Amino acid sequence: MENIIKSENIVYFDNNATTKVDEKVVEAMLPFFSEIYGNPSSMYEFGGQVGKYIKDARAQVAELLGASDPQEIIFTSCGTESANMALRGVLEANPQKKHIITTKVEHPCVLNTTKWLEKKGYQVTYLSVNSEGDLDLNEFRNSITHNTAIVACMWANNETGVVFPVEKMAEITKEINPSTVFFVDAVQAAGKIPINVKNTKIDILGISGHKVHAPKGVGAIYIKKGTLVNPLIIGGHQERGKRAGTENVAGIIGLGTASILALKNLDDELTRIKALRDKLERGLLERVFNARVNGSRINRVPNTTNISFEYIEGELILLHLSDLNICASSGSACTSGSLEPSHVLRAMGIPFTAIHGSTRFSLSRYTTEKEIDYVINSIPDVIKKLNSISPFQKQLKELEEIKFARK
Amino acid sequence: MENIIKSENIVYFDNNATTKVDEKVVEAMLPFFSEIYGNPSSMYEFGGQVGKYIKDARAQVAELLGASDPQEIIFTSCGTESANMALRGVLEANPQKKHIITTKVEHPCVLNTTKWLEKKGYQVTYLSVNSEGDLDLNEFRNSITHNTAIVACMWANNETGVVFPVEKMAEITKEINPSTVFFVDAVQAAGKIPINVKNTKIDILGISGHKVHAPKGVGAIYIKKGTLVNPLIIGGHQERGKRAGTENVAGIIGLGTASILALKNLDDELTRIKALRDKLERGLLERVFNARVNGSRINRVPNTTNISFEYIEGELILLHLSDLNICASSGSACTSGSLEPSHVLRAMGIPFTAIHGSTRFSLSRYTTEKEIDYVINSIPDVIKKLNSISPFQKQLKELEEIKFARK
Repeated sequence: MENIIKSENIVYFDNNATTKVDEKVVEAMLPFFSEIYGNPSSMYEFGGQVGKYIKDARAQVAELLGASDPQEIIFTSCGTESANMALRGVLEANPQKKHIITTKVEHPCVLNTTKWLEKKGYQVTYLSVNSEGDLDLNEFRNSITHNTAIVACMWANNETGVVFPVEKMAEITKEINPSTVFFVDAVQAAGKIPINVKNTKIDILGISGHKVHAPKGVGAIYIKKGTLVNPLIIGGHQERGKRAGTENVAGIIGLGTASILALKNLDDELTRIKALRDKLERGLLERVFNARVNGSRINRVPNTTNISFEYIEGELILLHLSDLNICASSGSACTSGSLEPSHVLRAMGIPFTAIHGSTRFSLSRYTTEKEIDYVINSIPDVIKKLNSISPFQKQLKELEEIKFARK
Repeated sequence: MENIIKSENIVYFDNNATTKVDEKVVEAMLPFFSEIYGNPSSMYEFGGQVGKYIKDARAQVAELLGASDPQEIIFTSCGTESANMALRGVLEANPQKKHIITTKVEHPCVLNTTKWLEKKGYQVTYLSVNSEGDLDLNEFRNSITHNTAIVACMWANNETGVVFPVEKMAEITKEINPSTVFFVDAVQAAGKIPINVKNTKIDILGISGHKVHAPKGVGAIYIKKGTLVNPLIIGGHQERGKRAGTENVAGIIGLGTASILALKNLDDELTRIKALRDKLERGLLERVFNARVNGSRINRVPNTTNISFEYIEGELILLHLSDLNICASSGSACTSGSLEPSHVLRAMGIPFTAIHGSTRFSLSRYTTEKEIDYVINSIPDVIKKLNSISPFQKQLKELEEIKFARK
């Protein structure tokens, strides 16, 4: 383990990709590896006692999501599995309906699943968004038919942080077709904004552990009592027959603890973290003339800002940030590596010259003001350097003049 | 955490249900929770470096399984997911073939999946076993047709430890229909007997982390190069598009380390653990007249013995063992709770009066001779007590007389 970059050596602004596991979460998990390691399905107490801890974790996740009954929570291996289970499990349980509604800006776990379902004969409506990343609720309303099996919609967008009015959308759905199931991918919303499923008409909602300071490899899905969802992973009787396979006990305990911590930190998220994010955003917009924020600055989770540095290349920005030990990303980790321009920003109609220079900064409870200052103070020079080698000198000059004229 | 039963307070003989995570495995995993926590899909080195550790773990699992190329290893969330992926992924990739061959004694992750597939129009052959738990290779040979998409067969049975000749069966399969895919559920074989997939005609092989002293919540699947298997969980590009969802990094690292430890311990398993199992078995057979071993005593993994205490109730035995702090099980953890008599022992034609009193003892590298002696010395009294309240007094008396006559 030499030449390793540990968390203390970096300035981490990529919490929408993954988060540091909270020390309290690790502490809660540890006994379940080598001490209390029984299989919860066992008859004897050494195994059976583990079931009680899983029950506690289920109640903790229910609390984070505002579910009225912990039995509505099923543990999965990740947010992606939750989304796969929701879509495919609902469709299999309702084989007569062949229409799906989703949005153009969903995570690949939804979009690649709906593409797969299209090949199986399903018809999919992909709702568009405007330049702010917002949906048109009339377009949504008009797309619901008697044949609509499920609506799959994210609560908060992973790239821009833009929040969709899923509570309102669930109401519209039930108003037009009460038998249509409303599924929310809340992976980027949990722990960042209040969630209270029991007061909504949302039927299914998925979350991921590692986005809320629990470890990678565990997720959960809320399934409102009475909603028919077939299991995705078939086998033993675990999770009351909804998800087979020996439970990821330590991960589940970790997600439970992380849920309670997320609830406790929600106020901090909505105030301190939001203020830090706003300071970062303002600081960069003031100092960098070709910086612009992508997506609504009003309907947004508190921890995210997606900033385009126009006319320069995002990959180059990230490499330079990496040299400064700043971790940020150009969109979703699940699509990175592909070098394809963000499908989210494209759907918003952002010009390509801005999409390419887009950078997402996502904060967490561990983000400090010092880190914000460091980013604000170091990025302008990086951008200045990159501007100087951009092939779009004419456009940059025009942009700079406009900015100065405004001042 | 009061009134907790920790591992130091129990005598654990249920390693086929789950195992204690090796301290070295926990140690290897720990840095990946809160220190080296980056998302391996990230562009920056803090995330990217994690990919290198996953690569190492992949090579370690490949070594345990004797795969020639680490890229043939895909990480999953458990053995059940591996089996679901194998069956459904192969069938989806080969939609023209509609026949499946499996055995009557598979784990529920295979049997419940094939039952589900039957409802989807697939025809399934369930191979029978004899009273020793062995398959009839002629019956197997005759069941393979041009329409057979996949054979799903366990390497070692979870309840009896009986080993199937999967290497031979894979050869028979390819001889009759080279396009039939041969899948092995090796969850109970890995770490217990040598596995060397590169010298076999096995196409796919699944394992589970928590059966080899890695944590619960991680598994792997070997897919021989060139074998078409569609992903089960759809989304991002992780695991080269074969399994979406952010990688369970700590779990994967843990499974890698556990694989190397399992390889190192294989000799111990085949000698010391086998000798302990044999001592336990002999000790109980000698001291308890109504004890009998279920399944072949020759073709068996070294750590397992399935013993029936005839004419008494298995649940009662387990409760009494639990009072003695001995953890053992009456069959698979994944079917326990159902109280249904074991489908494995039923398929073997074991009399019901023996099935009900069946108890599985499964050892591990942590099992000591002292523990074996404790079990041998304490169980006879328990059985004596339970015999005295059995409604089958006449049969018990006959059995006792036969046993004494033999001596």
